[in-house]
Amino acid sequence: MDKPIPSAIAATTLDQVIWNPDGLVTAIAQDHATGAILMMAWMNRDALALTAAEGRAVYWSRSRQKLWRKGEESGHVQRVREIRLDCDADVILLRVEQVGGIACHTGRQSCFFRVLKQDKWEIVDPILRDPKQIYR
Amino acid sequence: MDKPIPSAIAATTLDQVIWNPDGLVTAIAQDHATGAILMMAWMNRDALALTAAEGRAVYWSRSRQKLWRKGEESGHVQRVREIRLDCDADVILLRVEQVGGIACHTGRQSCFFRVLKQDKWEIVDPILRDPKQIYR
Repeated sequence: MDKPIPSAIAATTLDQVIWNPDGLVTAIAQDHATGAILMMAWMNRDALALTAAEGRAVYWSRSRQKLWRKGEESGHVQRVREIRLDCDADVILLRVEQVGGIACHTGRQSCFFRVLKQDKWEIVDPILRDPKQIYR
Repeated sequence: MDKPIPSAIAATTLDQVIWNPDGLVTAIAQDHATGAILMMAWMNRDALALTAAEGRAVYWSRSRQKLWRKGEESGHVQRVREIRLDCDADVILLRVEQVGGIACHTGRQSCFFRVLKQDKWEIVDPILRDPKQIYR
């Protein structure tokens, strides 16, 4: 990070979160209007601070080892309506407005588009937009 | 485990799940009727197989290092209506009927009872039943 993290969330409030040995917590994104669970990702301290400060979901990409402003490539920004913390203080729940109605990189509303049916993972949700059109 | 795991889910279906280096995936439990996110826990291969076979949520307790049939002490069993897998195949979503309407060990419906408000984690959900009455 080149710039200091905005401080819409106090250090003491961040200190109440139980970060894992890698400095991360899991974060669940839920559509605030429909209740649909959109995705699960990871946050470090900076990601949570930025999410609170900017009002949009910012995650930590473990594969790319960098902060990831959800929607920075796709435009599918998550506007944050509420940030919740669980009883063990190691899971964050974001209630969001999903811009474009698509959270998944496959072009679906939700990443949870496979259901266990008769012992197989079956795809049950449609692709709303071709990923080639999303990531150009 | 003393007994073999019932096989309502095939080995090849379990093989499609991407288990982390500890052999675990995160599992989110969502109330199937209200959409409320109840809790997040962990599953190993046996936990997922048992969940599918028994139709109730079975997790892996990292603190106790053993299988944990949700509700075994509290009676707050989660009857599983649907099992979903995410795009990266490393998060399970259970849509459940929450027996007793309480998922959290604090006696609340959901573990996500704290909301970030004016820079503080504020408890916003009521205790429905005293934990001392739940865990006797």
